[in-house]
Amino acid sequence: MLKVAIVGGSGYTGFELLRILALHPNAQVTEATSRQYKGKAVAEVFPSLSGFYDRLRFSEPEDLKGLGADIAFSALPHGVSQGAVTELLKSSRVIDLSADFRIRDLSVYRAWYGDHASAELLKEAVYGLPELKRKEIKGARLVANPGCYPTSAILALVPLLKEKLADASSIIVDSKSGVSGAGRSAALDTSFVEVSHGFKAYKIGSHRHTPEIEQELGAIAGAEVSITFTPHLLPVSRGILSTVYVDLAKGVSMKEVLSLYRAFYEKEPFVRVMDEGRFPDISQVRASNFCDLGVFVDEKKGKAIIVSAIDNLVKGASGQAVQNMNIMAGFPETTGLIAPPVSI
Amino acid sequence: MLKVAIVGGSGYTGFELLRILALHPNAQVTEATSRQYKGKAVAEVFPSLSGFYDRLRFSEPEDLKGLGADIAFSALPHGVSQGAVTELLKSSRVIDLSADFRIRDLSVYRAWYGDHASAELLKEAVYGLPELKRKEIKGARLVANPGCYPTSAILALVPLLKEKLADASSIIVDSKSGVSGAGRSAALDTSFVEVSHGFKAYKIGSHRHTPEIEQELGAIAGAEVSITFTPHLLPVSRGILSTVYVDLAKGVSMKEVLSLYRAFYEKEPFVRVMDEGRFPDISQVRASNFCDLGVFVDEKKGKAIIVSAIDNLVKGASGQAVQNMNIMAGFPETTGLIAPPVSI
Amino acid sequence: MLKVAIVGGSGYTGFELLRILALHPNAQVTEATSRQYKGKAVAEVFPSLSGFYDRLRFSEPEDLKGLGADIAFSALPHGVSQGAVTELLKSSRVIDLSADFRIRDLSVYRAWYGDHASAELLKEAVYGLPELKRKEIKGARLVANPGCYPTSAILALVPLLKEKLADASSIIVDSKSGVSGAGRSAALDTSFVEVSHGFKAYKIGSHRHTPEIEQELGAIAGAEVSITFTPHLLPVSRGILSTVYVDLAKGVSMKEVLSLYRAFYEKEPFVRVMDEGRFPDISQVRASNFCDLGVFVDEKKGKAIIVSAIDNLVKGASGQAVQNMNIMAGFPETTGLIAPPVSI
Amino acid sequence: MLKVAIVGGSGYTGFELLRILALHPNAQVTEATSRQYKGKAVAEVFPSLSGFYDRLRFSEPEDLKGLGADIAFSALPHGVSQGAVTELLKSSRVIDLSADFRIRDLSVYRAWYGDHASAELLKEAVYGLPELKRKEIKGARLVANPGCYPTSAILALVPLLKEKLADASSIIVDSKSGVSGAGRSAALDTSFVEVSHGFKAYKIGSHRHTPEIEQELGAIAGAEVSITFTPHLLPVSRGILSTVYVDLAKGVSMKEVLSLYRAFYEKEPFVRVMDEGRFPDISQVRASNFCDLGVFVDEKKGKAIIVSAIDNLVKGASGQAVQNMNIMAGFPETTGLIAPPVSI
Repeated sequence: MLKVAIVGGSGYTGFELLRILALHPNAQVTEATSRQYKGKAVAEVFPSLSGFYDRLRFSEPEDLKGLGADIAFSALPHGVSQGAVTELLKSSRVIDLSADFRIRDLSVYRAWYGDHASAELLKEAVYGLPELKRKEIKGARLVANPGCYPTSAILALVPLLKEKLADASSIIVDSKSGVSGAGRSAALDTSFVEVSHGFKAYKIGSHRHTPEIEQELGAIAGAEVSITFTPHLLPVSRGILSTVYVDLAKGVSMKEVLSLYRAFYEKEPFVRVMDEGRFPDISQVRASNFCDLGVFVDEKKGKAIIVSAIDNLVKGASGQAVQNMNIMAGFPETTGLIAPPVSI
Repeated sequence: MLKVAIVGGSGYTGFELLRILALHPNAQVTEATSRQYKGKAVAEVFPSLSGFYDRLRFSEPEDLKGLGADIAFSALPHGVSQGAVTELLKSSRVIDLSADFRIRDLSVYRAWYGDHASAELLKEAVYGLPELKRKEIKGARLVANPGCYPTSAILALVPLLKEKLADASSIIVDSKSGVSGAGRSAALDTSFVEVSHGFKAYKIGSHRHTPEIEQELGAIAGAEVSITFTPHLLPVSRGILSTVYVDLAKGVSMKEVLSLYRAFYEKEPFVRVMDEGRFPDISQVRASNFCDLGVFVDEKKGKAIIVSAIDNLVKGASGQAVQNMNIMAGFPETTGLIAPPVSI
Repeated sequence: MLKVAIVGGSGYTGFELLRILALHPNAQVTEATSRQYKGKAVAEVFPSLSGFYDRLRFSEPEDLKGLGADIAFSALPHGVSQGAVTELLKSSRVIDLSADFRIRDLSVYRAWYGDHASAELLKEAVYGLPELKRKEIKGARLVANPGCYPTSAILALVPLLKEKLADASSIIVDSKSGVSGAGRSAALDTSFVEVSHGFKAYKIGSHRHTPEIEQELGAIAGAEVSITFTPHLLPVSRGILSTVYVDLAKGVSMKEVLSLYRAFYEKEPFVRVMDEGRFPDISQVRASNFCDLGVFVDEKKGKAIIVSAIDNLVKGASGQAVQNMNIMAGFPETTGLIAPPVSI
Repeated sequence: MLKVAIVGGSGYTGFELLRILALHPNAQVTEATSRQYKGKAVAEVFPSLSGFYDRLRFSEPEDLKGLGADIAFSALPHGVSQGAVTELLKSSRVIDLSADFRIRDLSVYRAWYGDHASAELLKEAVYGLPELKRKEIKGARLVANPGCYPTSAILALVPLLKEKLADASSIIVDSKSGVSGAGRSAALDTSFVEVSHGFKAYKIGSHRHTPEIEQELGAIAGAEVSITFTPHLLPVSRGILSTVYVDLAKGVSMKEVLSLYRAFYEKEPFVRVMDEGRFPDISQVRASNFCDLGVFVDEKKGKAIIVSAIDNLVKGASGQAVQNMNIMAGFPETTGLIAPPVSI
């Protein structure tokens, strides 16, 4: 039984790790830390988990390297995670759900996030998108779990960019995210009354997931990529839908693109490419690790519209983290992760 | 033109006063205070009001008695309002939207709320439910605007109690309120993710609106009344629906009760008694000052079920406050308040 | 591997059976019927199930007795299910999710539902509430799966009635249900625009679940029971919360009632009795088979308020049906059913 | 007092006309037709309107030209409206809320909608976007009220296209609409359970509002325009937000674009251009006739992102129709239309 620790376990990604791992046949959460809820039973903080972690209490250890876990998930905020990961690595392999180790170029990290206390780890960290880096993840000591928006954008674009069928300089990612993406915290901006009838764009031209998307797409395209990225806030708790626009190479047809996506993701257990004329709905991936993809080509304009849907807390965070854990531990990749979405 | 001040204007009841008064033909908001947003334009804090109060900024006056308003609304929290009202009364008539002046008996106030800095005003304050106290409100210096739950419960029960057709000791009020009732503040408990799929009872047997309902029903019944009151939190922004159960005097029929309610509320501009077999829906009173009432009698059991629906921010707070203002100022009572609900 | 058929599989309870059984280790859905979607792949009708039932298509068999299933679930509407169940019983044991076999007294059935084509089965059918009838369910040929409201009301009241601590003539059940309870159909009344800001009572004094609740509570109390039952429509997709009021025998305390509930449900895997002062929230049982119970006693008034929360589609329908299947087939009762709620 | 008829008055645009006109000081609804609700009182069909139209019943006249209205609104579906408008014009000026008279080119209409029974009126009809065609509307006999998506897209782009500062061939309109846009009808696709957790794109590359947007933008740009238009379905009842991407002429700055929009809309009573760095939210225009616009320029990429928000039922339909009525009747354009949005 793999021993697992969750550091910063009382946010939504922490909760989601607890929810998913509750039924994992080969892993056991032996430690969950939380400064805010130190000493409280997990089921007191999260009543839905009553019956699942009855002996587990949130702790606040002085010494993170003593957690004794085979794999530690850091679900701390970026900035805070940097130091914690360095400590955790002394005794565990680490999957970091923050943005701290996703950006390989320190200057880029600094420009978007500020200083980095563990910069030496940036080169070692593996970007944990299994569909791209399964092999590197397997042996990694430190996996940087991808951001939610980046997961949705990258999976939508990889096949086209890899096959050089699209103009990487033309990419527009118009993304819409549920409110849980903002984290579990008391804030007027994410209160029910403020958001339940609303919909808005935010951080236009300045969202911190931009460089992460550009880095990964650039690596695939083999060139520097600069995207236009507009995130929006949806009045749902879970889900990201990204509508991605990109100019195609001359003469590329709908059928071609659809075949390409089918072939590229054929063996991927968590990517479902939809039939022609059908498009994803975030409800259809809710509470699951699936990424649904719909493909459209405007052949006259030479433009592709790729629509991707994920659950931001699962494939966009904790589910993907468990998928990475499975790969690192040598378990079948879908262990504990395959379940029908709770679509209604 | 009546000069109006709103003290504590940046919460939801403050916003709602601003929204309603924006179109009032005989009143003008000349001052709105807010500690938190001091110096900010109203439209900056509430972008929906852009174009309506372009010269008005939230202020934090040192001296409340210098506001120069004919009527001042206090939309401050209970406890804080006590002192402010004393100051405001030096130069204005006051409508207090907090609970501070609703309870006439100081010992009851203390038991439920704590100390009272302006206890001498308790006897003078008029409980501002126009359907019951129109005359007293007209001449009042201080109106205690009713609570949202009490408005919904009292209007549901007055006719039966006044006619001595019901057993006041048997009253059960099962109420369901939208989230705006919790106020405009940053809190995990009222965040979108926490409440959007939820529904729960809270403060069972201990909600502070209990003594207020009991006081007013007792006055009508001419006897001490002790109710069972269970509030619940609905995943909507606005609206309270109360389902009220009460044992009837022997032999009282559905038709009798319905006729009674029709007659009792016939001239009330804001109470709509529904036809037999029809029951209110909070959506049908949304953003309006109406209270819709549905009546059912189980003749075999001798029990009435009265269902009332209001918008907690309008008839349950700011709309009723403006109704009181109209009465106090001698305007037609419906001035600026009659508009179809925004039911969809 | 148990062979399972779902008759009427394209409604919400059918979907939920498919969702739950997708991961059941000892059962396999070998047939799913649907008149409306005859010939269509399950994943075409329910895209969220893509990848789970790829070879299963909805069928419309002429002959229900030839389905060849060990256990058949009938998820047909009441009235329609009567005849189907008679046919299904010729070759399978049957769990009927409709109301057709829940009422033992034919005259009561007729009064509330109309004629019954298979009345001879009424006495044989076992009311499938495992917490009450585990033994009878084990050997049953026909299980009448309880209604959603009745499940929530009965589990809330059993301990008090069994111990004769409450006055069964005083019961008030104030229930609130999510919209999926109305079934999967095109209807203006359940359209998003009509219900998303709304909340209302409906069928006051006339809901068909009334006699079912009265029958089961009466059997426990050993006397005829007549309840007051008010259902309401909540703007959520899943969940029922029932707030139940009942007069207690003299001198019964909060601690006593709480201890009683704890003891009564101690070994039940799906009933969670909450600590004193805590009350259930439908979000905390979402997409799970749990029933959460909260207990309050107003000792002065001698009244208990019991609050129960279930997911109407799981413990209130398809989850309970699978629980019954597990019992009938001799599997551990929790097989395929224990999973943390999707509370956010 | 202007006499007004509403033909097809029981859908959402019909309801919204009734809601808005209830308080119009210079117009009175003398007739409202509905095949479905013929003979029913308006307040029976729409309980929220109880008290506002107590003598008005839905009618189904054999002869539309005999309605005797000064202005008739046709809120019938496209296709059906064609014939009705011809009749109505015999005795009234007409504002048609369907798509039937928005497309000037018959061949384009046929390609997207099918046959047209009143094609001779296409050239006469005035496209009723007051910000563009105030003068033509004033004298029009027939106004084609713009579609909801087109209103949001056109107002976002007019200033840039008029000033030739943008490349009209590069336009991408990524729009998100509330569910009321689908009309008031019984449909599984728009039922609460199906849409409340969902978000999806639909009719990619094939939505019928495409040619309408292209026609109007083309007229402004003085050239044929072909856009990329992707509509999405938002889980809210009201509101459209369009995120519009367009390539700018060389060297155009954020400040320039913002000044241009400010100047262009300075005198428009219903268009609010937001400050730099602020973007619209559909909640902030809810139930109002405002269109809020936010402007962003990525100066490095030479791309503008314009975000527009309207209430699809008000500025996107019935509010704009009343605005047109005011213009046609010579009333101040804002009569009965200026009210703060119901943002919470």
